[in-house]
Amino acid sequence: MRIDFVSDNASGLCPEALDAVAGVRGGRAAPYGADGATAEVAAAFADVFEDDVEVFLVATGTAANTLGIASLTRPWQRILSEEFAHLATDESTAPERITGCRVTTIPAGGRKLTPAALEEREAGLSDRGVHSVAPGVVTLSNPTELGEVYTPAEVAAVAETAHRLGYRVHVDGARFANAVAALGCAPRALTVDAGVDALSFGGTKNGLALGEAVVLLPGPHQREAAAALPALRKAHGHLLSKHRYVAAPFAAVLADGAWLRHAAHANAMARRLSDGLAALGCSPGVPTEANGVFMELDPVVDARLRASGWAFHHLGHPAWELARFMASFDTAPADVDHLLADAAG
Amino acid sequence: MRIDFVSDNASGLCPEALDAVAGVRGGRAAPYGADGATAEVAAAFADVFEDDVEVFLVATGTAANTLGIASLTRPWQRILSEEFAHLATDESTAPERITGCRVTTIPAGGRKLTPAALEEREAGLSDRGVHSVAPGVVTLSNPTELGEVYTPAEVAAVAETAHRLGYRVHVDGARFANAVAALGCAPRALTVDAGVDALSFGGTKNGLALGEAVVLLPGPHQREAAAALPALRKAHGHLLSKHRYVAAPFAAVLADGAWLRHAAHANAMARRLSDGLAALGCSPGVPTEANGVFMELDPVVDARLRASGWAFHHLGHPAWELARFMASFDTAPADVDHLLADAAG
Amino acid sequence: MRIDFVSDNASGLCPEALDAVAGVRGGRAAPYGADGATAEVAAAFADVFEDDVEVFLVATGTAANTLGIASLTRPWQRILSEEFAHLATDESTAPERITGCRVTTIPAGGRKLTPAALEEREAGLSDRGVHSVAPGVVTLSNPTELGEVYTPAEVAAVAETAHRLGYRVHVDGARFANAVAALGCAPRALTVDAGVDALSFGGTKNGLALGEAVVLLPGPHQREAAAALPALRKAHGHLLSKHRYVAAPFAAVLADGAWLRHAAHANAMARRLSDGLAALGCSPGVPTEANGVFMELDPVVDARLRASGWAFHHLGHPAWELARFMASFDTAPADVDHLLADAAG
Amino acid sequence: MRIDFVSDNASGLCPEALDAVAGVRGGRAAPYGADGATAEVAAAFADVFEDDVEVFLVATGTAANTLGIASLTRPWQRILSEEFAHLATDESTAPERITGCRVTTIPAGGRKLTPAALEEREAGLSDRGVHSVAPGVVTLSNPTELGEVYTPAEVAAVAETAHRLGYRVHVDGARFANAVAALGCAPRALTVDAGVDALSFGGTKNGLALGEAVVLLPGPHQREAAAALPALRKAHGHLLSKHRYVAAPFAAVLADGAWLRHAAHANAMARRLSDGLAALGCSPGVPTEANGVFMELDPVVDARLRASGWAFHHLGHPAWELARFMASFDTAPADVDHLLADAAG
Repeated sequence: MRIDFVSDNASGLCPEALDAVAGVRGGRAAPYGADGATAEVAAAFADVFEDDVEVFLVATGTAANTLGIASLTRPWQRILSEEFAHLATDESTAPERITGCRVTTIPAGGRKLTPAALEEREAGLSDRGVHSVAPGVVTLSNPTELGEVYTPAEVAAVAETAHRLGYRVHVDGARFANAVAALGCAPRALTVDAGVDALSFGGTKNGLALGEAVVLLPGPHQREAAAALPALRKAHGHLLSKHRYVAAPFAAVLADGAWLRHAAHANAMARRLSDGLAALGCSPGVPTEANGVFMELDPVVDARLRASGWAFHHLGHPAWELARFMASFDTAPADVDHLLADAAG
Repeated sequence: MRIDFVSDNASGLCPEALDAVAGVRGGRAAPYGADGATAEVAAAFADVFEDDVEVFLVATGTAANTLGIASLTRPWQRILSEEFAHLATDESTAPERITGCRVTTIPAGGRKLTPAALEEREAGLSDRGVHSVAPGVVTLSNPTELGEVYTPAEVAAVAETAHRLGYRVHVDGARFANAVAALGCAPRALTVDAGVDALSFGGTKNGLALGEAVVLLPGPHQREAAAALPALRKAHGHLLSKHRYVAAPFAAVLADGAWLRHAAHANAMARRLSDGLAALGCSPGVPTEANGVFMELDPVVDARLRASGWAFHHLGHPAWELARFMASFDTAPADVDHLLADAAG
Repeated sequence: MRIDFVSDNASGLCPEALDAVAGVRGGRAAPYGADGATAEVAAAFADVFEDDVEVFLVATGTAANTLGIASLTRPWQRILSEEFAHLATDESTAPERITGCRVTTIPAGGRKLTPAALEEREAGLSDRGVHSVAPGVVTLSNPTELGEVYTPAEVAAVAETAHRLGYRVHVDGARFANAVAALGCAPRALTVDAGVDALSFGGTKNGLALGEAVVLLPGPHQREAAAALPALRKAHGHLLSKHRYVAAPFAAVLADGAWLRHAAHANAMARRLSDGLAALGCSPGVPTEANGVFMELDPVVDARLRASGWAFHHLGHPAWELARFMASFDTAPADVDHLLADAAG
Repeated sequence: MRIDFVSDNASGLCPEALDAVAGVRGGRAAPYGADGATAEVAAAFADVFEDDVEVFLVATGTAANTLGIASLTRPWQRILSEEFAHLATDESTAPERITGCRVTTIPAGGRKLTPAALEEREAGLSDRGVHSVAPGVVTLSNPTELGEVYTPAEVAAVAETAHRLGYRVHVDGARFANAVAALGCAPRALTVDAGVDALSFGGTKNGLALGEAVVLLPGPHQREAAAALPALRKAHGHLLSKHRYVAAPFAAVLADGAWLRHAAHANAMARRLSDGLAALGCSPGVPTEANGVFMELDPVVDARLRASGWAFHHLGHPAWELARFMASFDTAPADVDHLLADAAG
């Protein structure tokens, strides 16, 4: 099987990350984050977001999402998420385990959440005081699971509505770099300035071996969340011991802008693939905006790709059926062209 | 405010229950269920269901629902429930706290679940092995929150589908007596014979001061569930100490059929109210089958009732807007007629 | 078996409680605590404690202890309790389930906690920041499981030390009435004035069918705890529906001082029993101060009592082996004399 | 500060691990453990233990301990652990969060558990059926937190007693390699043959960047535990995405015996240090058997080391006060000699 496009977590390690690991290979470093590399990461994130952010590294995206949300909620509250969000579909019951909250989904067919969708869903939920689940966190994925990118204005609109309804706002940014690269905006425009309270900033899908950052952004909840997060992280077994090995690669890709270069490259490869498949008569089910291509495959193309051994997911929904191809920092133009050649028959 | 019809948990204590409490008032009884009254309850339930059932009494409906489901699940599984079900709307995050499971709702607008609705919802859920929430329990409320009664065949059809999809089946029978009274069927026909694994058998809304029974029905899961339930009940603080005071009233209403008489009376009062309101030009939003009346109130009637000080809930949904009136074991015909007279102006 | 002295939860229902239940038998009352009897309970507790207290009724002692402590803690903290405390020995893992905290015991052999014991235990616990369990709540039982009564000064001394070490203070007062009756002090002297943050005030073992009150006392934690408790109570399934049936009996025993009369009677019966056994050559293992008698039974007396069919617990510890006899509000002098006669042979 | 001996998690990355990371740097690999390196790890562990073991990799020792124990328990059971065990002192409330169980400690002053200590502690715990916490898992650390190594016979004796008392047996082997290297025995002799049900096999403290293996050993609980573990791991956020980066280094150190060479080296360095300090008049508080040196430092030596900037922990207990020095795979003889020279003044 050719798994080049099956997922961006099938990708390798970027050179900056490997060099960083090698760079901190020897010698001694204080464990649990009291090392120099961790301090560098904190400083790098402050630079990236141009503000005082609180940063906590963990090994998995599920940990980042659920710990970030847990720091903003109490266990009688609700997490509102789009029905196709990773938190809702791919994290087992980790949200319940780690936050204690109820997960309630908004059926937007994998597309972006809107203020109207939020208000409609909230209106359909019971509001009977202590009997009902209380508002907790609205989480949105940027890019979405279908690769669409929320603009700063779109995030701000959702956040404004969420706050008005009593929720705090979390962004699952497992591919946040791809969103920023696609928009060409400042990271803070998509988060701090848009009213986001907490962000999962992904490293794993953008060239690290592992590493996600919970970023608590300035705002009314930052102080209390930042006080709870260290205890939450430890009490769920997510505090890494030899912390420099997660911190140094993270610092490396942040410090010199590699995170954005890698993401921009992945986005470009997705665009190349999307354009190529469109030229073969396939239509993108959703706009190709980040590093994912979600395509209504022409049956002939589909058959050719399968016959050539290409692996890819088919995602289904009453409203659509899409093939998914994910590009990565290490996707070569030749890889794309190889697939397109096979697709062309 | 006149709260006669606002809820069946605003009702009083039935004479059998009060007599039973008085009857066990004095003397000594072993605590925690090792008393004679508790043994009587167990025997009475075996008679009611004509089979070997395992029975555990608790004080609240939320405890009964969640402990029953917890005994049938592991904390990485899913509870599927209709969106208007009490478990989904009125039990805060107790399902998450006590079962650990995810609660996922099926949007049936408060109406009965069907095999098709179950299959459609399941098809929309992710199925990616360990990443996804696993099948756990399908719970249905009989009667539903809108007072409709599932027939044995309807329960059996849902249960068959649920089992096929990997779920066990729980029935929230907070008003199970009203369902049985409405159908005139054997309790086992609605449960054991229909493939139900666990039932919450309500006492509180049918004349007890408090008391709900978790009834584990014969079947492939009974033994394991019955082994876990005592520990679950205790470890969530739900094992009552002076157990005779919950057991004796329960035994009393079961032993002489009072539970069914009370329910039949409540159903009849609901019917009287429903017919009377229909005669005034209001139409029942759903059929009046048990002890609840769910009415599209004529605006004039609505205004008259409010002006006369009658309290009742308005339930809303995109597809309907209904006024709710609950009759109880102690609703007098005169109470109904009083409301109808006010409604007639 | 004669179980008269086996436990005070084998006792019956006091007349005031039965009358109160009968008194609220009929008519309608708003559910979930919005009824008149619940308002009366709140007012009665304010009178009893001569201060603004927040009161929440539940059905079991385990619920009262764990919800009260949960309202004062976060799930990375510690509950410190004496090793024989009910919370440590008789509540399964409900403390973990409902508070999330670690339970750590102090080996005082069932005797009273002291500031020194607290400090010694705390000194033996790790203190490595986020790696260690953080201070949460010190809980003491008054009377203790061996029937000894803390004086106001003793409670205050423990509370002062606990607060200094970073803990809040909870009192398990399943038999608080017996402590107050024994001391003849004002309830507030044992709680508010002594620095206690939350109290489980027991009703079940003092003549109610069921009913325990979580009493949040004035102090720095009351407001936050009182904000969390309603959600905690509901989210663990402990909010009773027909609330008047737990509230009215509670109000009845509080309003006219029956709670203290019953407790004083039980204490007197314990004293009568203790004196009688002492006269037969048995020595009390601990002073008989409340309604429990903990006796080193003369082997002959032990044998006679067993031969006569009296049931009682034997409690063991490396330092002692004691027979336990509990007197209750409904223990008659003749019951005591009957046992003593059998003991005398 | 010289932190060379402050902890073995302040150590670096062993060459085999770095090479392995570099070796799997490029190309694609299926995520979540469906990669070749993960298959190699499984095979390597089967070789190491000479039996069918089930292996699950996680990023932290806390995750390994708590998930392994969770797979063997239900949340109304007890974890018995020595009072100085990492699980009891350094994992916050992660044991409660992830297993749901109560943690109860055995006061052995950091020394090895014995059957007698186990029996004595169990005898002091309440045994009142559903009211009591049920037996769950006995966990022992090999080597202990004070660096002593249980022999196969000692493990077997504890395990036999634990099983007889109704417990399953878990070994925290964060430094299992050091124990095996110290004993020169077969890994299976210390585990499978000794009746151990689950082992945390540490990689992080022995040269990996991160990586601990939950090893479920053949026996009556393996099948059920192995069925639960994947869901538990995922539902607590501990399933690593780009799994090859944890698997390949683990496979590398297992495959060629590097794990034992590194551990043996660390043990030898500890011995060199221990002997050197003893020659300066200090006495080891416990025998130096693995890679930790626990010393009653002569005050003069202590002062000299501090003056020279050496960091080390002081561990306190009523019975002893010890300085801790940890050697690692990358401790050079010159590092030891440097410290000894400073100690000699």
